[in-house]
Amino acid sequence: MTILTWAEARDGVVPVDAASARAADELNDRLTKPRGALGQVEEIGRRLSAMARRCPPPVPEPVTVCVFAADHGVVARGVTPWPQEVTVQMVANFCAGGAAINVLSRQVGASVTVVDVGMAGDLPDAPELLRRNIRRGTADLSRGPAMTAAEAEAALDVGVGVACGAVRDGARLLVGGDMGIGNTTAAAAVISALTGRDPATVTGRGTGIDDVMLAHKAAVVAGARSRLGAGSGPLDVLAEVGGLEIAALAGLMMGGAALGVPVLVDGVVSCAGALVAVGLAPDTLGYLVAGHRSVEPGASAALEHMGLRPVLDLDLRLGEGTGAVLAVPVVQSAARILGEMATFDSAGVTDKDQ
Amino acid sequence: MTILTWAEARDGVVPVDAASARAADELNDRLTKPRGALGQVEEIGRRLSAMARRCPPPVPEPVTVCVFAADHGVVARGVTPWPQEVTVQMVANFCAGGAAINVLSRQVGASVTVVDVGMAGDLPDAPELLRRNIRRGTADLSRGPAMTAAEAEAALDVGVGVACGAVRDGARLLVGGDMGIGNTTAAAAVISALTGRDPATVTGRGTGIDDVMLAHKAAVVAGARSRLGAGSGPLDVLAEVGGLEIAALAGLMMGGAALGVPVLVDGVVSCAGALVAVGLAPDTLGYLVAGHRSVEPGASAALEHMGLRPVLDLDLRLGEGTGAVLAVPVVQSAARILGEMATFDSAGVTDKDQ
Repeated sequence: MTILTWAEARDGVVPVDAASARAADELNDRLTKPRGALGQVEEIGRRLSAMARRCPPPVPEPVTVCVFAADHGVVARGVTPWPQEVTVQMVANFCAGGAAINVLSRQVGASVTVVDVGMAGDLPDAPELLRRNIRRGTADLSRGPAMTAAEAEAALDVGVGVACGAVRDGARLLVGGDMGIGNTTAAAAVISALTGRDPATVTGRGTGIDDVMLAHKAAVVAGARSRLGAGSGPLDVLAEVGGLEIAALAGLMMGGAALGVPVLVDGVVSCAGALVAVGLAPDTLGYLVAGHRSVEPGASAALEHMGLRPVLDLDLRLGEGTGAVLAVPVVQSAARILGEMATFDSAGVTDKDQ
Repeated sequence: MTILTWAEARDGVVPVDAASARAADELNDRLTKPRGALGQVEEIGRRLSAMARRCPPPVPEPVTVCVFAADHGVVARGVTPWPQEVTVQMVANFCAGGAAINVLSRQVGASVTVVDVGMAGDLPDAPELLRRNIRRGTADLSRGPAMTAAEAEAALDVGVGVACGAVRDGARLLVGGDMGIGNTTAAAAVISALTGRDPATVTGRGTGIDDVMLAHKAAVVAGARSRLGAGSGPLDVLAEVGGLEIAALAGLMMGGAALGVPVLVDGVVSCAGALVAVGLAPDTLGYLVAGHRSVEPGASAALEHMGLRPVLDLDLRLGEGTGAVLAVPVVQSAARILGEMATFDSAGVTDKDQ
């Protein structure tokens, strides 16, 4: 199946399969362990079965990590101590294999694709770098729309295209990641708008800011949020206060879902993308696994809103996909349990007295 | 170094190296990420550096999972719905590769060694099975001592010997696991005695028991615990209310620590072993990493007592080493981060405004 646009992806997402989830429950109860003793690992296996529409589900591998990079005009408002040039520098670091996401991806055998969906600066060509630049950074979301609706849709399409390309190349588990100085400000605004939470409760310290800058950042988020009416849809929110990497992440998730491939959600920026994806195509939710609980309060707000329980909780706040890729072995283990464990009958183990 | 007895292991454990921990802190602050942004992953890397006495520490691999199996006379008191024969049957399942611990070990490339340190039943030979039977199950700990002091020491020696054998064969990360119908009763008694907590607060449902059986189990634990005076040491506790696999797990941890090899702690039975090990040789604590937080209340009590924060929290209650082996990739990732990430200088990335 070839999907070219986010609208095609949206229309292509079908609900996960409840019968396969029930088959996983039944199988889990026959495996050589007390019922329920593998806790969340059983629940993840159940969900993978529903996504794959069969039980046991295949082990979701190989894994492709897709890191979307973009810049944010709101950095002009002093919401981060990091200069904008760091976005391009870190993307160069990704391409050279020296960043955290590279190291963690090597640990789990995942490949890394880096996508320029909206960086302000430029970089030489690199094999890992996909050039899909929609615009050279968003406009300052504190002063007006971050981007046009057409740009938001084009960035969604980029994410869909990256998902389809990765799956065509063999990926059976996608991990979304982000890089963009200033992007936790945009993510907080998107999360506030799409969950209805107060801006101050979903604005965090991002890469590490002090109390004064945090209060200022929350005020910027609140101001941007106030321009959105109660009837604003996910596309309106994305264009008005979002980011190009947030849009692309939403597209990646819808694309993965449309192709029946699980997508691991990372931190607060990915969570903002997930809210957009689920807003546009609600059945996408069935294909999302929350990799971790970021320390950013907006991430927890978004996960709670979607009813997703994170696999890990390690006080991470880096983005790039790092928390999600750390969760990959647990997700793969969940599928293996259903596929490889012996049953009481097959192993000749006595079940407990009922 | 060859260590033959638990006393030699105890005397061989040296404190982890604070200078290497400081070197890890300094390196972490120069890596291309905001300071502290990898949260617990940085903390684990710091601890691995201290254990290895160098920074960056080596990636702790290969991994050997050592599952100690033993039976418990207290099953005669009706503290579990599972018949005692299941211990032997599950060990056969381990040897055949069909249990959860086998599946999860394959996911992370770990080998599994199964040690009969005190099963009541017998099994044919198998390549994975080490025969180190001290006695055919403990005596009923509700009526009197579970074992003699000499037996407890012999079981400690078994664990030390298994650790040394695994490290001699190349292991650089050890995972302790357990199998023994009834062993959460013994673990609760050990944890109550060594943490000072009320027996009722550390007794859990084990593999899954109802409220009536839980109340009875807690009463059995309280009765056994009441025989121990305030001055009881770890060896007294082990012999009076412990288990042969709990002793062997304590030996494994002391042996690993004496050889400078990290040991991952699993659920409530492993936590009981860890309390014994740390009681006998306090510096062992520096070499222990808590793999996960079991749903068994005694596990949390023990971890809190030792000041260990678990890597995972997935509602597991299976034992066998399953929760610990699931944490292996996170632990290995922590070492890789220090060894492989670029620094701000090396990658040409601008650090934030200070």
